[in-house]
Amino acid sequence: MKRKFWLVALMLNGLSAGSHAQAVPAVAHTLLPVPARLSPREGNLPLRSTFTVGVTHFRDARLEAAIDRLQHNLEQATGTPLGHVVQPQSTLATLSVDVDGPGEVVQSVTEAEGYTLSVTPSGAKLHAATVVGAMHGLETLFQLLETAPTGYFFSAVEIDDQPRFPWRGLMMDCGRHFEPLEVIERTLDGMAAVKLNVFHWHLSEDQGFRIESKLFPRLTAMGSDGLFYTQDQAREIVAYARARGIRVIPEFDMPGHSRSWFVGYPELASGPGPYTIRREFGIDDAAMDPTRESTYKFLDAFLGEMAQLFPDPYLHIGGDESDGVQWKANPSIQEFMRAHSLASAAALQAYFNQHLVAILEKHHKHMVGWDEVLNPALPKNVVIQSWRGAQSLTLAAQQGYQGILSQPYYLDAMKSAEEHYLADPLPSTSRLTPDQRKLVLGGEICMWAEHVNSGSIESRIWPRAAAIAERFWSPESITDPDDMYRRLNAQSTRLESLGLTHRSHEDTALREIAGSNSIAGLRLYASLLQPVSFSDRYQQQHTDQLTPLTNLVDAVRPDPASRHDFARWTHTVLKPGPDAAQARASLESAFKSWISAAPEIGSQLTAIPRLQVALTLANQLPRLASAGLAALDYLTRGAHAPAGWKQSQLALLKESQSKTALVRYTFLSPLEELVRAVPD
Amino acid sequence: MKRKFWLVALMLNGLSAGSHAQAVPAVAHTLLPVPARLSPREGNLPLRSTFTVGVTHFRDARLEAAIDRLQHNLEQATGTPLGHVVQPQSTLATLSVDVDGPGEVVQSVTEAEGYTLSVTPSGAKLHAATVVGAMHGLETLFQLLETAPTGYFFSAVEIDDQPRFPWRGLMMDCGRHFEPLEVIERTLDGMAAVKLNVFHWHLSEDQGFRIESKLFPRLTAMGSDGLFYTQDQAREIVAYARARGIRVIPEFDMPGHSRSWFVGYPELASGPGPYTIRREFGIDDAAMDPTRESTYKFLDAFLGEMAQLFPDPYLHIGGDESDGVQWKANPSIQEFMRAHSLASAAALQAYFNQHLVAILEKHHKHMVGWDEVLNPALPKNVVIQSWRGAQSLTLAAQQGYQGILSQPYYLDAMKSAEEHYLADPLPSTSRLTPDQRKLVLGGEICMWAEHVNSGSIESRIWPRAAAIAERFWSPESITDPDDMYRRLNAQSTRLESLGLTHRSHEDTALREIAGSNSIAGLRLYASLLQPVSFSDRYQQQHTDQLTPLTNLVDAVRPDPASRHDFARWTHTVLKPGPDAAQARASLESAFKSWISAAPEIGSQLTAIPRLQVALTLANQLPRLASAGLAALDYLTRGAHAPAGWKQSQLALLKESQSKTALVRYTFLSPLEELVRAVPD
Repeated sequence: MKRKFWLVALMLNGLSAGSHAQAVPAVAHTLLPVPARLSPREGNLPLRSTFTVGVTHFRDARLEAAIDRLQHNLEQATGTPLGHVVQPQSTLATLSVDVDGPGEVVQSVTEAEGYTLSVTPSGAKLHAATVVGAMHGLETLFQLLETAPTGYFFSAVEIDDQPRFPWRGLMMDCGRHFEPLEVIERTLDGMAAVKLNVFHWHLSEDQGFRIESKLFPRLTAMGSDGLFYTQDQAREIVAYARARGIRVIPEFDMPGHSRSWFVGYPELASGPGPYTIRREFGIDDAAMDPTRESTYKFLDAFLGEMAQLFPDPYLHIGGDESDGVQWKANPSIQEFMRAHSLASAAALQAYFNQHLVAILEKHHKHMVGWDEVLNPALPKNVVIQSWRGAQSLTLAAQQGYQGILSQPYYLDAMKSAEEHYLADPLPSTSRLTPDQRKLVLGGEICMWAEHVNSGSIESRIWPRAAAIAERFWSPESITDPDDMYRRLNAQSTRLESLGLTHRSHEDTALREIAGSNSIAGLRLYASLLQPVSFSDRYQQQHTDQLTPLTNLVDAVRPDPASRHDFARWTHTVLKPGPDAAQARASLESAFKSWISAAPEIGSQLTAIPRLQVALTLANQLPRLASAGLAALDYLTRGAHAPAGWKQSQLALLKESQSKTALVRYTFLSPLEELVRAVPD
Repeated sequence: MKRKFWLVALMLNGLSAGSHAQAVPAVAHTLLPVPARLSPREGNLPLRSTFTVGVTHFRDARLEAAIDRLQHNLEQATGTPLGHVVQPQSTLATLSVDVDGPGEVVQSVTEAEGYTLSVTPSGAKLHAATVVGAMHGLETLFQLLETAPTGYFFSAVEIDDQPRFPWRGLMMDCGRHFEPLEVIERTLDGMAAVKLNVFHWHLSEDQGFRIESKLFPRLTAMGSDGLFYTQDQAREIVAYARARGIRVIPEFDMPGHSRSWFVGYPELASGPGPYTIRREFGIDDAAMDPTRESTYKFLDAFLGEMAQLFPDPYLHIGGDESDGVQWKANPSIQEFMRAHSLASAAALQAYFNQHLVAILEKHHKHMVGWDEVLNPALPKNVVIQSWRGAQSLTLAAQQGYQGILSQPYYLDAMKSAEEHYLADPLPSTSRLTPDQRKLVLGGEICMWAEHVNSGSIESRIWPRAAAIAERFWSPESITDPDDMYRRLNAQSTRLESLGLTHRSHEDTALREIAGSNSIAGLRLYASLLQPVSFSDRYQQQHTDQLTPLTNLVDAVRPDPASRHDFARWTHTVLKPGPDAAQARASLESAFKSWISAAPEIGSQLTAIPRLQVALTLANQLPRLASAGLAALDYLTRGAHAPAGWKQSQLALLKESQSKTALVRYTFLSPLEELVRAVPD
């Protein structure tokens, strides 16, 4: 019936329904991440409802489920019902999948993730050594789907792909704010779509202990506000992730960031109790007591239980920001340090970590820890996760430790996708030797949760995490931000189709803020704003775990389209070429729309108490627009600006950088370039 | 800190931060459902961060959780952090909650749901006999929250409220399409917000068996595609619902609509197996065999297991649309019917239901069934759910059966909120005696799932279900659709704040359809469309359980704002009064925007294969707009239309009613009124 609709429509519009997509012009692919090697071929493969899949060699339930997901995604994206037929041994299928074997029983850094994919007008062939490799190839095939008026099709192409780094992670902090299971599952869906392969699950913090322990039930009974994952749910997440080629590495932060443990088990702490769940953010003095045998007995039992729950060979013990204050205040710990010649808190932490290494080895786990665990006393199979930057990673590699880079990938810094994208975990300019370079396993995107809740977190992760995923997967040479943004825009839509809320959040949040008021002007205003960085917000606004995160800053998205559009238009205008006139028209149209929307924006901000803080900033918008229009006018006419004009515009621009409303305009830097370009 | 922001903003804008909300003009409340008795009072109660709650008498965990939810919702809605202090025995609190006792151990139709709420400038007082009544009052208080430039506040008011009907349900069909747990939980959140109190969970269908049975594991192992609720999850839903004053009534449809049972247990069926899960919709011949003792042994065990899982005193056995075909084809069943003098399939079904009544009684459950179970052979404690209309309900009541009305509340009929709203379960014109009237327990909204999936279902339920909820709760005399829409709009925002996706779905779905293409024009087009009714779609498009529901019809929402706006503007223009000029301007502006957007709409529809079916309809849009503009012009000038004009416009309007694209314009009927009003 649906096919009949198409025919009717095509005939009504005088289009031929025959010869399908063959005549479609070649389109630039929107693959993200870009494959290691890709060669476009002639023609394309139409997607029809007769699409079938043949599995020619190895198959298992995981592979079949991944094929089923591909078929489902193709159906959703095209509205075309497919048969969901997986033909055994068939080579007559539209897509033939040839996998050598299942891959590792427990996926690790050594999993073979490569694949080859060939799409011709007569069919597609996917080959991979493992199911994980095949899953990556299936995601690539889905991304090759294109739309033309004559139908849906895959562009013909030859791809030989493999990741640059074996460790491509996303850390989610579920300690400071709890995230519901469905948010985690959607995150895993998004990760699989862009070939991220490590979900680093930050499960304990001063503000909450989030995983059920059957041995130590007071950890969640007293330390979680009832917000935690049961062991069944954790197993569900591990299985969900494995089904998508993603490892799950749990983190239990110790000896610091651990106040929530002490609510139920104060005897673990270095200072006297009782303890309550911490609501404030920042560094807490409470730390485990590394001098007592009972601490290690507890951790041995607890980590043994967790080692059963999380099959990954790695386990993260945190280790960051332990300030030693409780240790210094405890005479018996001080005595212990003297007796064992431990001269500093760092030395005592290394002593603690040595015990942890032994415990983890007993439970067949490698240790991962943040920068601070780096200490020559630790064995070389410890993995260092650098949150302080490339320099600590280099230092670790020079000492023979494997490492993963996180510092340039902090999503709460509210940087642009472009800034994250251009930060390479291992640039060719690195001074590491070839052997040391091999120790850099990859990187991890960090989503810390001081300022996100279940409503906003996806808008902070996506689509920026997809750009970083490309940095971890694709060749170092792939660095064109404009092309990345073009593909990221397409990928953002695909991510939304998976159920992710990163795009819908802004409108939803604005409607919540506005209540019965209209959001028409607010939407335009919000589209020109982005949140200030974590540290700027931290300085401007006192928030704690219970602060409602429903202000303007929580609604607007990091790196919205206006930022890149505005920069691109401005640079096109300033470097005149064939597109300059169009770019100038876009800028003019934007400036004029700001001026005409200004009264409505002002009255909507005034109507809502918690938006009034943004009024000063909003009042600058029409003046900034006028500055832009004037600059364009001078530039077009090649005219000089009147005396003092430029100075006063630059003063206005500076004033507009105020961060008191916790948001900042996306266009200030290119607008300043425009103003500065006007001849004096 | 946030308070400081406000002060700054207020001073910058020359507003006084003192004397807070006292000077705010009275606003019309947006309560939905409207309380039984409401008297506005002078002044209002400002919401400040010092807001506290005192519980003066009875308290339990359910009440405390409800108070915590109120505080959380207030925080979200205002961005104001509250202390979450529940003061024991305190009468100094901003809100004092006085509850007599916990209410029923298992909530039922006899639960006392009334409450009184008094809001004065110095505080609010809530009294209720039960926790359920108190929860309703807390929802009302939240709805009293208003926003003014000077701050957030509750309007002062006296309310004495109680429901008109004790049974106010929403039926969700999770058989034809499975719905994830979070969708059900969000639905329960929405129901609680509008005081619906029965979640009727349709758990088995020809297309899927959705609840785990430990006794009969093949029900889900073979009959669910792996899409089912575990018993733990069902218990979670029951607890989640009870925490919100909502009963959960499971439905196991039998003897028909039961093919999925037979995949694992073919011996239950009246015809020979084997069986597979049905993908087609419509009536299936497969039915349970009512003549075998083994069928009742199975049902006794199964229903006993379910009776444990679902504490509600009622259990729904379906009973609808059993066509008797398998019974007629089975010689041994025919022989049985002769031997027992059962002259018809209906008589055999009554025989079956008599057995079910006995089984349910053994497990302490009352039976609920659809119309077809109505039979004098059944005891009077069976509740009849009418899907055929008010007449069967009347018939049931006249025979002494309790009943609930569903027929006018089928959401898949894609009617307007107004049409549903004006259908009364028990109009004052009913010919039932006072005693018979008491047998009408209330009504249920039905969300059948042939054409919805987890992405679209919320956009079909909300906000229309909220309008029906008012019909079930509020006095019969509350029937002004314009006022209902005004309040529904405010309530829709509140529902979205709970996480419901009814508003965000349209954009999300359009972006999915458009892929990398723009949706700018599509959005305007979609805002003027609504889905055709279930039966129109059923006739036009062959869908089954596996059909992707990602077409234009699945994106657009039932009864969008444009429908009511357009009707209201038109009626205002045609009955000239003070608002006529404004309404005319709104209409003109709308017509002109359609004309200017038409080229973009056309090119966007052309670009996407599955949207091309809507091109013919879209091509009519600028012509319809021109008809409207011309009509307005003639009407304004009091001019006669040229000969033939009206006829040709009416022909165009008729043509535009085409349903081939599965969508229909929202404005055709008022536009026709406008055209007809032009003098000939």
